[in-house]
Amino acid sequence: MFTLLASDGHARRGRLTLAHGVVETPIFMPVGTVGSVKTLVPQELHTAKAQIILGNTYHLFLRPGLEVLSAAGGLHQFIAWDKPILTDSGGFQIFSLGKLNKLSEEGASFASHLDGTKFMLTPEKAVQIQEILGSDIHMVLDECTPWPADEKTARTSMERSMRWAARCRQSKTRPELAQFGIVQGGEYPHLRRASVAALREIGFDGYAIGGLSVGEPKNIMGEVIEVCGEVLPRDQPRYLMGVGTPLDLIEGVAKGIDMFDCVMPTRNGRNGTAFTSQGKITIKNAQFKLDQDPLDPLCPCYTCTTHSRSYLRHLWHANELVVQRLLSLHNVTFYLSHMQAIRDAIGAGTFARLLKEQRALWEPGKGKLQA
Amino acid sequence: MFTLLASDGHARRGRLTLAHGVVETPIFMPVGTVGSVKTLVPQELHTAKAQIILGNTYHLFLRPGLEVLSAAGGLHQFIAWDKPILTDSGGFQIFSLGKLNKLSEEGASFASHLDGTKFMLTPEKAVQIQEILGSDIHMVLDECTPWPADEKTARTSMERSMRWAARCRQSKTRPELAQFGIVQGGEYPHLRRASVAALREIGFDGYAIGGLSVGEPKNIMGEVIEVCGEVLPRDQPRYLMGVGTPLDLIEGVAKGIDMFDCVMPTRNGRNGTAFTSQGKITIKNAQFKLDQDPLDPLCPCYTCTTHSRSYLRHLWHANELVVQRLLSLHNVTFYLSHMQAIRDAIGAGTFARLLKEQRALWEPGKGKLQA
Repeated sequence: MFTLLASDGHARRGRLTLAHGVVETPIFMPVGTVGSVKTLVPQELHTAKAQIILGNTYHLFLRPGLEVLSAAGGLHQFIAWDKPILTDSGGFQIFSLGKLNKLSEEGASFASHLDGTKFMLTPEKAVQIQEILGSDIHMVLDECTPWPADEKTARTSMERSMRWAARCRQSKTRPELAQFGIVQGGEYPHLRRASVAALREIGFDGYAIGGLSVGEPKNIMGEVIEVCGEVLPRDQPRYLMGVGTPLDLIEGVAKGIDMFDCVMPTRNGRNGTAFTSQGKITIKNAQFKLDQDPLDPLCPCYTCTTHSRSYLRHLWHANELVVQRLLSLHNVTFYLSHMQAIRDAIGAGTFARLLKEQRALWEPGKGKLQA
Repeated sequence: MFTLLASDGHARRGRLTLAHGVVETPIFMPVGTVGSVKTLVPQELHTAKAQIILGNTYHLFLRPGLEVLSAAGGLHQFIAWDKPILTDSGGFQIFSLGKLNKLSEEGASFASHLDGTKFMLTPEKAVQIQEILGSDIHMVLDECTPWPADEKTARTSMERSMRWAARCRQSKTRPELAQFGIVQGGEYPHLRRASVAALREIGFDGYAIGGLSVGEPKNIMGEVIEVCGEVLPRDQPRYLMGVGTPLDLIEGVAKGIDMFDCVMPTRNGRNGTAFTSQGKITIKNAQFKLDQDPLDPLCPCYTCTTHSRSYLRHLWHANELVVQRLLSLHNVTFYLSHMQAIRDAIGAGTFARLLKEQRALWEPGKGKLQA
């Protein structure tokens, strides 16, 4: 399913073959939380060269629900997206959005954040739901260990997640769909290594590094990724969940990560921020009032080939909804072009130079146009 | 500038040649109030076969203002729309949105609805602003006589509007841009005839029928259009401002109208309503929960060729912004296809049959799917 094509230092260039198509890695996956990558349509995601998008099982399970998704024939048909989809297990949202009632060996009972309806999510149920969705890659149910957590708490939590992972693997019924395990263990290297060993013992189609981006310092994230990288199988894909900025992505690749997802390009777009080859732009700023240049002169997206910063700034101040989609489209295109540049650099053996350039661009105060 | 190609009863099939291109009439003009047809981008308007769009001078004058619009080289360049644009004079919004301070022979002094800044709009200034915008068609400054108005009030108001119309014509400096007069006179046939005579005496490139859709009964609108139609020149275009529903459009064409504009397709789209070949649809309704059909099986738009009613309903209930653009895109496409069908019917001599079918579809309770 995964072919390692080239490497440059720890950075890896690979190819992932999934039920709905091939994904060139390293890759960024735009997030389609409730069945749409916010403000955008599938046609735009194709033009932006999205290869795989993410859906949130928790949200989709609650609304529209399995009756509607089944009637459509699965998530792909429902949202009219014919390329690969990865779904998470729903666990993360239960802990962050839902009201968790009880966490037990059996699973997690929770109340919907929408209307308070009570549900029980077990490892088996998480797999069953995602198989109904028909996601090309589905994630095991795990507990995202909070940060900070002492060693005992992190170990107890990780060990239960590993037992849940085994139950997820056992309940898998659709061989054409891939299933990824999730490494837990908090900030503790020995727990992370134990978690990887447990998951490898079960055997998955890929491995995610979970429990990061939950408030811990950046150096801890880096250390955990390095520790996991040393023991994860080289011939399978590695996914860093919920990360991150353009700099986070290339730093992750430098540590051997193949897959990323984050709401940042669309959320920042809706909040009036654009990522560009010259740094970050806050479109409402007065400096763009008469600026006839595109957001990013190097970007091939519709926004950049059609509209000026002056016009986008006007739309923002006039509260015109269209600016949210124009900025989101640009940001998603920017993220995907960024990953293309990373893939090209790994293939060409110039990754180290690209990493150096990107560090200079994105470090605070270094972007030419940073707000 | 205007060529009458065919007629069928009072309905007219024509062609309008403007600075930025040719417009086939009868035509509907999507409204781009502050420089964007709400939620949509120029590419979508091209695909929907929009031939001409409308901009609101009052809104554009206040925000982004003439400095920004001039820096871009005019409204076309600013909004990246290379086909014709019609702008109103700003008068209607001063009376409806702004705070009118004083109406005098000289013009209208008002305070911005955005920040209270005071301005004076005169007929000369209205033309000057619209010539800076570079609209293919600009409208004279007039007073939209309120309804109801007694004969003396309607006459006094109309007569001043006619003096303003003459000043507008005199202050016109760009011969390549068309200027339309606006007929006023309230509900009084003799005043409407006097207004048409005054405007014809001045001589314009086209004529709008103003002061309608301001609360009067539908039969008054119809009578006023008929009275004006009898005395307006046959060889120039006739524009019914701010109208209307799909049925209003074809009824207007039946009385000799060539041009229409209305916020209805985009506003209704943002409010969750779609116009279809089977009637109106309220997308949130439970009946569409599992409905795998497109909004309108006869529609060629992206929304209808890509998504199901079930998915659109889900997006609505999940508060996903993208549904507003998907419904707006459909509605604008529907309106423009409707006008294409009307033009085809006039050309083929089958307009009376189309009018009968449309009356059956749109009369209350007659649409198959009317909510």
